[in-house]
This record gives sequence, structure tokens and C-alpha cells, in this order.
Amino acid sequence: MTAAVPGPERFARIALSFVAEPGDLALGALLRACGPAEAFAAICDGRPPDTVGAPGRSGIPGLGHAIERWAARLGAVPADSRLAAWERAGLRTVCPGDPEWPTQLDVLGDARPLVLWLRGSADLRFACLRSVSVVGARAATGYGTHVATEMAAALAERGWAVISGGAYGIDSCAHRAALAAGGTTIAVLASGVSYGYPRGHHELFDAIARAGAVISEWPPDRAPTRPGFLIRNRAIAALSRGTVVVEAALRSGALSSAKHARDLCRPLMAVPGPVTSTLSAGCHEIIRDWGAVLVTGASDVVELISPAGDGRGGRRRGPVVPRDALDLASAAVLEAIPARGGGGPAEIAVRAGVSLDTVLRCLGLLAAAGFAERSGTGWRVRKQA
Amino acid sequence: MTAAVPGPERFARIALSFVAEPGDLALGALLRACGPAEAFAAICDGRPPDTVGAPGRSGIPGLGHAIERWAARLGAVPADSRLAAWERAGLRTVCPGDPEWPTQLDVLGDARPLVLWLRGSADLRFACLRSVSVVGARAATGYGTHVATEMAAALAERGWAVISGGAYGIDSCAHRAALAAGGTTIAVLASGVSYGYPRGHHELFDAIARAGAVISEWPPDRAPTRPGFLIRNRAIAALSRGTVVVEAALRSGALSSAKHARDLCRPLMAVPGPVTSTLSAGCHEIIRDWGAVLVTGASDVVELISPAGDGRGGRRRGPVVPRDALDLASAAVLEAIPARGGGGPAEIAVRAGVSLDTVLRCLGLLAAAGFAERSGTGWRVRKQA
Repeated sequence: MTAAVPGPERFARIALSFVAEPGDLALGALLRACGPAEAFAAICDGRPPDTVGAPGRSGIPGLGHAIERWAARLGAVPADSRLAAWERAGLRTVCPGDPEWPTQLDVLGDARPLVLWLRGSADLRFACLRSVSVVGARAATGYGTHVATEMAAALAERGWAVISGGAYGIDSCAHRAALAAGGTTIAVLASGVSYGYPRGHHELFDAIARAGAVISEWPPDRAPTRPGFLIRNRAIAALSRGTVVVEAALRSGALSSAKHARDLCRPLMAVPGPVTSTLSAGCHEIIRDWGAVLVTGASDVVELISPAGDGRGGRRRGPVVPRDALDLASAAVLEAIPARGGGGPAEIAVRAGVSLDTVLRCLGLLAAAGFAERSGTGWRVRKQA
Repeated sequence: MTAAVPGPERFARIALSFVAEPGDLALGALLRACGPAEAFAAICDGRPPDTVGAPGRSGIPGLGHAIERWAARLGAVPADSRLAAWERAGLRTVCPGDPEWPTQLDVLGDARPLVLWLRGSADLRFACLRSVSVVGARAATGYGTHVATEMAAALAERGWAVISGGAYGIDSCAHRAALAAGGTTIAVLASGVSYGYPRGHHELFDAIARAGAVISEWPPDRAPTRPGFLIRNRAIAALSRGTVVVEAALRSGALSSAKHARDLCRPLMAVPGPVTSTLSAGCHEIIRDWGAVLVTGASDVVELISPAGDGRGGRRRGPVVPRDALDLASAAVLEAIPARGGGGPAEIAVRAGVSLDTVLRCLGLLAAAGFAERSGTGWRVRKQA
């Protein structure tokens, strides 16, 4: 997929990701005010850009001090040669504005990731359109690993990408089960994607990259920090259509993604377990006190979050993305799909006036988003409930 | 406790319980129209009483046929000698209007029990004021029996009576745990109390009678019928402050009490369990689809249903019964309790102008209902949240 963000802006975002922490609200506000290139230039100058205002009058609280703090780390910004080496190693960056950017991250506002570092074969935006986050305790029980495995496998079999944090316990069960089912899975790390924390999962991360993606907001070689895990969790919640907590102790870190899902008004689900298990206590708490929906398996999850016409019926919902949020090519392809019978990609390409490659990419996206489906006679528009 | 219902009315209710099934809505409507003595006389005459109207114009659908059906069973009405023998065997009857009648059963309307047969030491109304129904599957798992036992024991230790159906599985665990904790427990049978179904629980029923009560709407020697269990379950739900389902398969009989609790707008609670257990599937279903509250132990239950000032705070509720629903003696005793410091029963008896026995009975009732409490210096009025 072609990168749409121009080089200087992309470089500025990458450079900023070396001097600031993800989720920094002051930097988010500065980017909103003047864009990444000007923001990075201001940090190099050591003072707020003129368009934002003189120091003390910027309207962004603490901006002066923040710029000093970021400027002190400018030495960490990598040389072009290092960036080129990462690219040769198979890493790519996805920025807001790129076709592969998952626009659902934009709900995070000023806390939106600056840039995502990505290693893997999946189209990130496409995969996340139809995805579920499956998270839980590192010290999972046999019960929790069993449930996470069954659920992730069944979700993958139904064409849902499984998003998780790459950690030991529930996370790794969810990733491995999705891989074993031939599905797509995305690991959102709190370390850089080359660092790959936990180190014991390097082979798992290789496998995930082959069938999906390993992504991170941190520079590739960065080790994780304790607060980084909590910052990372907002991205796990924001990327997917809904979040399932499989096992979690009371007030544990495993509930942090759940809290973000709740705060973002995304469907939040939890798997119950024995009341005698401390690792189910967090799930029971969020069902009782946060309004998380009790789910017992993939069917319950799909029923709750699936787009129109999918799942078991009865509780139909709208498509994943509204029709007028489609990109121009996808909208043209959707218009070109025959209303009756079915059409082949070549026929649709001619009607839409786009290339066959574009049609194939857009049909996949339209299917994932619940607008189109493949029938015995070709592609057709999916009836909305 | 003195029976308040006069002999002829009591005899009529007893006789009616031999000719009609509990929960018969036509009989309930007839009793509402003309009272039990006249209703029984009409059945003996084989036609609706004049006050209700001639056949076909009675306003009670099917009354003519119902009276024929009931009249055909008049031979089952026992002779006085048989009633006297039951009384000598320790059975008593409780009718609407008796001081021991649990008035919360009146929410059942025309389906209200005609009469309750009771074997046991407990004051039924007093015990039920502060009671929880704990129900569940007969074929309970080790997990379910463990949870039911812990929950019922902890409820009994906190002064809550445990109501259940006397069946194998969850029911018997709840009864036994309440007994072992020195608490009050009430078995509501679908057979007569002398018949005592299941027969294997005769010793358990003896123990329950010593510390609580075994009750039934059916005549003492009556064997259970299949529909009788479902009819009985409405009484289990209506007697208590709330119903907890510990284990239940999907669409099982164990959910029938839960359905009644829901329909009566009483707090309905369910214990989650492993999603891999079919005996927790019913609990998960009613949490997700019926709005049952997920509870993990007695603390959760008490928090949800306790009167003001009880439990863990934060979610305080009103007293069990409204103050103006108190009987005259209890209301007088409540008025006579010193507002500050504390008073002894003798002092309160003088101020209320009632006997010491009456004061002791009423103080127990007022404590159970959350109006009064015993402190180091004597009885005092409990502060309402």
C-alpha cells in the first residue's frame, strides 16, 4: 500500500516518537495546532512555534517546559541510515493520513498515537475493521487459557482478527489460537517491535508477523516501561470493535484495556468463571459494576459486535463503518457491484473505472465492513438489516 | 402465636386446599369475591354463590365448571379427627390474616396460597422478613455445592433465613449449611409436609423443623406432582427478599423460581461459574438476558437486599417493611424505644403499655426489619441511611 503522508511530515512524526512518550497530551495539542513538521522544528528551536504563541501565552498548559524536555532528547532521533536499516529489516511506519492508518484510533484525540511501527503482512486498517481485542491475566489458569484459546480460534474461523498485547498467559493463547485457526492476529506491544517484549515470545512474534502484524507506538529498539503498558492498553481498546477480558484479578493491569474500552464506549465483554478463582474476580467485578456484558464464547461476542446481517440475528447492528466514511475508491467499487445476481471483479473494475488490483483490495475491505459479500455467482451488495 | 383467623374461615381454607390445587386463579378470584366460608359452601352446593352471580354470569371465567371439578373432590376433605391428629403430630396451619402469615405472599394476588401447612419452631412471618431464597440444580457439581454451602452459611451467620425447596443438590446444601451455622432455614415443599418429598430427606426435614420450618401449600400426606414443583416455586420467590440461583442448566426447572422473582420485581441474583459447565449456563443466561445481578458470595447478596444501615454501605436501601406496615404492637414498641442511649425491654414495655412477652417478640421483629438494634446499653432506634 502506498504511503500517502509526505516524507517531511512522516519523518517529523518518527522523530517525535523518539523524543516524546506516546499519549503525551501536550504534544497531541501542539500537533493539532501546527502539524508535525512545524512541531518538530519548534522543538529543534527550543521554543513554541510562532503560530501557537509566545512562551506562556500558547494556550497549551506546560508547553514551554514540555518543549525543553523533548529538546533534551533530540539526540535520540535516529539518522536516516538507521531508519533505512529498519526498513530493510521489514519494518514500516503507519501515520495518520496513510491508507493503512486505522482511523478508529482517532477517537483517542490528542492521545492518538504519533506513528505506528509495524512488522507484518497484514493491512492494519483492513484487519482492524473486523477485530476483537482478547486480553487477560499473565498468570492465567488452565481454565482461562482454555477459554481464551477456544474463543480466539472461533473468532478467527469466523473471519475476525484477534488483537492482544503479546504477553504471557491469556494474550499469547489468543494470538496462538488465531494463528492455528489460519486467522489474522495483531500484537500491540509496549516495547518496540524489534525489541519484542517479552523476549521469550520472539518466535511467536515472528509467526504473528507472517500472518498478521506486530505493532508498537515506541521506536523499534525501545525496552518497555511500567507506565508504557497502561499507555499501550488504550490502543488495544481503540483498535478493535470490542474488548473481551478472559481472566483478570481485581484492580489488575489486565483491567486497564477494559477501562479504556468502557471510556471509549466500545463494547466491553467479560468471561465469567468460578467465584472461587481470584483470576475471575476482576471479570465478575466489571460485569456487575461496569456493565460489561457477560460472554461465554465467540458466538456471544460476535452477536454483540458483528455488523448488520452477520452473526445469529436478533440483535443486528449497523455496518462497522458508515457508508459515507468509505474512501473514494471503495465507494466507487461499492456503487459498481451489481444490485442483483453477482459480478466478477473484472466486470466491477470496468464499471467503477479502477484497476483490478484496486477492486480486489476494496472488495476485501467492503466485505470486512459488512457492505458486500461473495456469493456463488460473484460479488453482491449485502442486504442491511 | 395466637391464630387470628376464626375457626369456620380456617376450616374452609383447609377444606379448599383438599379440593383445589394451589395457585388456582378461579378459586383465588372466588375467594376475593366472597371469602373462603361462602366459597366452600358454594362448592358443597355445586353452584356459584348468589353474591357472585348465577352460572354463566359470574364474571369469573369457567367458574361453573371449576365448581363442578372441585365438588367432585369433596370426599377428600378430612374429618375433624384427622385434622386433630395432624395437630397432635405438630403440624399447624397459617392462613392469610394470621399474625404468622407472611404478608409478602399477598403480591401473588389470586394465586396466593390458600393456606400454609407448617411443621417447625420458627415464626414464619418473622423468619421471612429477613430471608434469601437459595436455589439451583438437583444434579449440582462439586463447585455448585461448595458455593451454595459457603453462601448459605455466611447468610445464616449474618442473621438471614435461608429459604429453599428441600430438593437434592443445591437446595439441600443451602439448608444444611444454614443449620450448621446455627441459623434459620425454611423448606418449601411441593409435597405435603408429612409426605416429605424427597423421601431421602426425612431426617433433613426433621432437622429443619427443629431450627426453622418445613412448609407446604398441599395437604400433609399429598405426594408431589410435576406441575406442583413449578407452582411451589412462586412461593419460594415471593417469600424472600431476593432469590439467588447457584447452578442451573439452560431452560431448567431451577430457573423457574428465578422467573417468578423477576416477574415479582424481587432482586434476582445468580452465581457465575465456568463457561465450560452446562450447570452454570442458566446462571449466565439470566445474568445476560434477564438482568440478574452477578453475585460471588454472601456479601454481594447482603449488599443488594439488606435493609438500611446493614451490609457494606454505599448501596443502602430502605427497611424491609415500610414503617406504616408494622402491626399496632410493634409500632407502639418502636415508639417506646428511647431515641438516645438505650432501653431495656421492661422499660420499653411500660412505656408502650404492652406485656414483656409482646415487647420481646416485637423487638425481634423490629430488629429483623431494620428499625431497631441492640447496643451495649440496651435497645435503640436504628438510624436510617
